[in-house]
Amino acid sequence: MPPTTLTLHAVPGIPEIRPGDDLVHILLTALDANRFVLAAGDVVVVTQKIVSKAEGALIDLATVTPSTRARSLAEEVDKDPRLVEVILRESRTVVRKRSGTLITETRHGWICANAGVDRSNVAGEGSEVVLTLPLDPDASARRLREGLMAASGVDVAVIITDSHGRAWRLAAINLAIGVAGMLPIDDLRGRPDRFGYRLRSTTVARADELAAAAGLLSGQADEGYPVVIVRGADYPRGDGAATDLQRPPEKDLFR
Amino acid sequence: MPPTTLTLHAVPGIPEIRPGDDLVHILLTALDANRFVLAAGDVVVVTQKIVSKAEGALIDLATVTPSTRARSLAEEVDKDPRLVEVILRESRTVVRKRSGTLITETRHGWICANAGVDRSNVAGEGSEVVLTLPLDPDASARRLREGLMAASGVDVAVIITDSHGRAWRLAAINLAIGVAGMLPIDDLRGRPDRFGYRLRSTTVARADELAAAAGLLSGQADEGYPVVIVRGADYPRGDGAATDLQRPPEKDLFR
Repeated sequence: MPPTTLTLHAVPGIPEIRPGDDLVHILLTALDANRFVLAAGDVVVVTQKIVSKAEGALIDLATVTPSTRARSLAEEVDKDPRLVEVILRESRTVVRKRSGTLITETRHGWICANAGVDRSNVAGEGSEVVLTLPLDPDASARRLREGLMAASGVDVAVIITDSHGRAWRLAAINLAIGVAGMLPIDDLRGRPDRFGYRLRSTTVARADELAAAAGLLSGQADEGYPVVIVRGADYPRGDGAATDLQRPPEKDLFR
Repeated sequence: MPPTTLTLHAVPGIPEIRPGDDLVHILLTALDANRFVLAAGDVVVVTQKIVSKAEGALIDLATVTPSTRARSLAEEVDKDPRLVEVILRESRTVVRKRSGTLITETRHGWICANAGVDRSNVAGEGSEVVLTLPLDPDASARRLREGLMAASGVDVAVIITDSHGRAWRLAAINLAIGVAGMLPIDDLRGRPDRFGYRLRSTTVARADELAAAAGLLSGQADEGYPVVIVRGADYPRGDGAATDLQRPPEKDLFR
């Protein structure tokens, strides 16, 4: 039987992150200050925001000159043309557009509002600095994992999360956009259920379940913690990438 | 600041559930056997399967006569016409169809594969009995909550979950289809972020995050537990319903 208990620990004391900061060092310092010792199998769940900030994925809209396409689209959806320019640079395609709403497929293949470009929790009111998603969240997760493993000597997994809206359902939940040290999908096909009936189509997005769980502590407003450690989870080990979660366009009935 | 620790406890020892079983009594007995005492604020997360079984939401396909529409659709998508008949009875509309795949909006307003009608974990290989979603999962959650509160004397929330596929992302995660004793959406709009910037569009689907978290222990195959207690979660209290999570069709760009 799988484990019966699972614990999530938020890590207090992570300071405001600036471009160039060493996230591994900052995280290890915060863990030390909380007398928290990483254990083998822990999943370290980190919000995209602090990863993007450390990587300097910040753009001051004052420096952005919108293209003709961005200006036209901005008028259509009633958004700042400079913000639309940044969104288009971060996107492969525009999936849906409507006044106030721009849903795109990001450079990485994630479908979300505004290509994940965000103003909140970046700088003060009146600031024109926006935050983009990390350049390669799977690579960011791998670097974090390597640093944490080198320092702690134990094997951990890392997930980088972002808060995404969904089709059909209101409000956002935390989902995985980067993983390291795990397979994001638990493939139960062919395993017997409790009656011996072979499960035919059951694959479970464990990385998304872990990301959503961490979202319960990582919050969105001025409260909340950007790093959550999940202990006791039964997840498939291996060299997976969050992009394994992306449904290929030709198998996607909803784009 | 919100809490820093959150714990999920699976409840071992829930027997195979049969139509007419008293889930409150069964759950309290299992909690007792595990010396687990419910505390105020606990969220009791229960899979749809045991609720549907207790409510007798079982249909033997041998008793089903498919309509002309069901036979035609079954041929189009290459499914058992009797199963398609049950799916259509459980649905308001067919949202997408393709060989092997039928995505519908259920009677309740959930968009998912096969209207949530399921063969796995119902009976043995060769059985033709299928399980449908509960008649009214929010009402089921309210009844469970009332029973648990009457017996335990503490205020708990209840979530009933189902495993759903998603647009754009592969594999399923656990989501809420019934809630009681909580608001499924945490509305952070207007709250300041850490820089005093007012969050403009942040609403978080806490019931879905709780459901997904419980999915890490509730599994899908012969392992896994149908009841998980979440302790320490910060969720909005109130008389909400999971249907509050449904995006109104006129505001949904993906159906």
